[in-house]
Amino acid sequence: MVWTGIITDVRVSDVRFPTSLTLDGSDATNRDPDYSAAYVVIETDRRDGVTGHGLAFTIGRGTEVVVAGIHALRHLVVGKPIAAFTSSPGEFWKLLTGDSQIRWLGPDKGVMHLATAAVVNALWDLWAKLEQKPLWKLLSELSPEQIVELVDWRYLSDALTPEEARRSLDRLVPTRDARAAAMLDEGYPAYTTSVGWLGYPDEKIRRACREGIEQGFSRFKLKVGLDLGDDLRRTALVRDMIGPEHTLMIDANQRWGVEQAIEWVRRLAPTRPWWIEEPTSPDDVLGHAAIARALEPLGIGVASGEHCANSVMFKQFMQAGAISFCQIDFCRLAGVNEVVAVLLLAAHFGVPVCPHAGGVGLCEYVPHASLFDYIAVSASLERRCIEFVDHLHEHFVDPCVVRGGRYLAPTAPGTSITMKADSLAAHTFPGGQVWQDLSERS
Amino acid sequence: MVWTGIITDVRVSDVRFPTSLTLDGSDATNRDPDYSAAYVVIETDRRDGVTGHGLAFTIGRGTEVVVAGIHALRHLVVGKPIAAFTSSPGEFWKLLTGDSQIRWLGPDKGVMHLATAAVVNALWDLWAKLEQKPLWKLLSELSPEQIVELVDWRYLSDALTPEEARRSLDRLVPTRDARAAAMLDEGYPAYTTSVGWLGYPDEKIRRACREGIEQGFSRFKLKVGLDLGDDLRRTALVRDMIGPEHTLMIDANQRWGVEQAIEWVRRLAPTRPWWIEEPTSPDDVLGHAAIARALEPLGIGVASGEHCANSVMFKQFMQAGAISFCQIDFCRLAGVNEVVAVLLLAAHFGVPVCPHAGGVGLCEYVPHASLFDYIAVSASLERRCIEFVDHLHEHFVDPCVVRGGRYLAPTAPGTSITMKADSLAAHTFPGGQVWQDLSERS
Repeated sequence: MVWTGIITDVRVSDVRFPTSLTLDGSDATNRDPDYSAAYVVIETDRRDGVTGHGLAFTIGRGTEVVVAGIHALRHLVVGKPIAAFTSSPGEFWKLLTGDSQIRWLGPDKGVMHLATAAVVNALWDLWAKLEQKPLWKLLSELSPEQIVELVDWRYLSDALTPEEARRSLDRLVPTRDARAAAMLDEGYPAYTTSVGWLGYPDEKIRRACREGIEQGFSRFKLKVGLDLGDDLRRTALVRDMIGPEHTLMIDANQRWGVEQAIEWVRRLAPTRPWWIEEPTSPDDVLGHAAIARALEPLGIGVASGEHCANSVMFKQFMQAGAISFCQIDFCRLAGVNEVVAVLLLAAHFGVPVCPHAGGVGLCEYVPHASLFDYIAVSASLERRCIEFVDHLHEHFVDPCVVRGGRYLAPTAPGTSITMKADSLAAHTFPGGQVWQDLSERS
Repeated sequence: MVWTGIITDVRVSDVRFPTSLTLDGSDATNRDPDYSAAYVVIETDRRDGVTGHGLAFTIGRGTEVVVAGIHALRHLVVGKPIAAFTSSPGEFWKLLTGDSQIRWLGPDKGVMHLATAAVVNALWDLWAKLEQKPLWKLLSELSPEQIVELVDWRYLSDALTPEEARRSLDRLVPTRDARAAAMLDEGYPAYTTSVGWLGYPDEKIRRACREGIEQGFSRFKLKVGLDLGDDLRRTALVRDMIGPEHTLMIDANQRWGVEQAIEWVRRLAPTRPWWIEEPTSPDDVLGHAAIARALEPLGIGVASGEHCANSVMFKQFMQAGAISFCQIDFCRLAGVNEVVAVLLLAAHFGVPVCPHAGGVGLCEYVPHASLFDYIAVSASLERRCIEFVDHLHEHFVDPCVVRGGRYLAPTAPGTSITMKADSLAAHTFPGGQVWQDLSERS
């Protein structure tokens, strides 16, 4: 239906959680993250008072730059009818990413792309709340024609045309309902990263492995890349704890050059990792391809995407056979529209999508993408799972729920990203109570 | 020598020139640029009062986001000894690009990379002024070992190792002086883009071609990509005006998809363009490679780089044979250090470097890169030229000088980027006189 109302404001907050105090989230590159977000609320003149919430995940310093980026997009949003977005979300996305002066700052990458993600996702949150549906359901009920319209095809159609995408979406329409029912019954497979942050001592890793198995997980990810001796010990430790029947993944967070990556991972191969994640620069398509070729005989796949700048980069990672696992990030890509573009590309290339999560809000966001992927785009769960970190969910009104190693289908209207007002206030940087207390203590 | 003193402040201004009023600088993607800059002044506690100036070129809206990005880097610079930079500029560059929290916003791309460029280049300006040398001379007098130290090799050494780079630099040391003398005598070849901004009517193009030839230019660049009929007429017009003996380049500013680029340029081939610049997304290495393969039989090269995010991307463009001309941008790459990295890669792959200029300040910056390239890195002028647009130079204390179609070697100490105080004040956005007057008029 056509939603009435005008967008009247885009409010932005700088929200930070002092996670660096506990080394949760520490890895070879991101040693002391304070999980943070530039948090957006879109307001309208509607009498029902519905607001759209969205965020871009960051890790501390520099969040204020993303906030400035969101302010720079204000003029493209405020004053527009809600229907300008809901009737042509693809056109609206092009408007947001195509400002003739702001585009110079990218295009389609870095701070402005994160800022765009927060705004785009807030618009989707608004729409889904108006429709009274969780985002995955709203997306899964769009027609193939509407789904294809979400995407900017200009730089993608050499790999996949909109007509091809539409034809494969068409084929899955008759069976969508059965897959949606399965998702509501069984949920979507998750894996846990909580066993092996780089700052964790061995005993904490052992305990986390035991807890993960008790909680029903079968896939476990460990951070590597700082010291080969440590990595040999820690991968063996996790393999020992989880047994031969479970799955081990390793994540180097961009630590290595291309040749170093190949050598290092070869040494860890006896512990049979399923994938090596971010072995080198996230921009290095050809480097990832070289690593993938070298590790393929060992049965180790290459995973990447949490720092992949945009759909044009993902296109190339797939064209070059550089990744075996596509790790979309819900707010590094410029929101739902570009996530959909990458899901379509991944289905076309037969690359499974295993979204990046953790952080703050990402575990809330990504089940919507994976459920939609299964119901309407790839129709497969094979080699697919969503990252899970049990962390900071208490700050959300509709937090994700993981049981028995599976994400339950979100049921509340929207994108699950609305933060509790108390949490938002307490963690606002630098004025919130949490940061005031920390600054007094130091 | 070791320079004493501590960096005490990083001042930033948002400077904008209302160039959209005249359509100078208009192209198929950037239709209404207001040439702008986030402008940095680094202050120290030295008694001689030397300051380091640097800028990141932008085109209007969003410059304030780059300003916010520069503020976010302050803590990495203020309080540091000048010698921390001048004794290990490569280590300092890694510090600036490697902040463990800010890195999440890139890495190495978009707003934060532009911000880094402004700061890095201001540090080089400070150093060159202390040395009382123009930047090109400071660089050309560094030892091969010092040059190799400037570069972060982690993600580049699969294509070129520091040892290989050092060996080729070594070979050119004995002949540096002769090439430096030639540069001081003859200057460096330029080409002009002033003949064909997309907003120009045909008569203005004719006049600009005549003027260009009178001024001694032999290479002329025309903007294309909005309308094929217009492009056929305008390329024929320029070819007719400049005659068969001169060189025509065309620039689509990312307007096309891959297949569209190939078809469109084939239609323009009869006017014999030397290169097609930015035929598609600046992130699409594989797309550029496909275009390059298709156009090679027609004798048309592919040029790209003004939007190339970083040295890892340039590495791949060269590995894939995707560009015949490497168009470094002095402040999209993170300043002098990364420019040097790309010059070394280009020399290794045998790709000529033809820097992007125009805008505001770029024509001042890039002769320093090209002179250094000729003197110490590539030792060749073949298929090489620097873009020139005769525009906004009056705002600089040491503006570039182009005579007879050649850039003269800069002689003033520094990087030629210090802006006149009056110009800076009048064009500060939004408070400067120029913008106050415009806002009163509208």
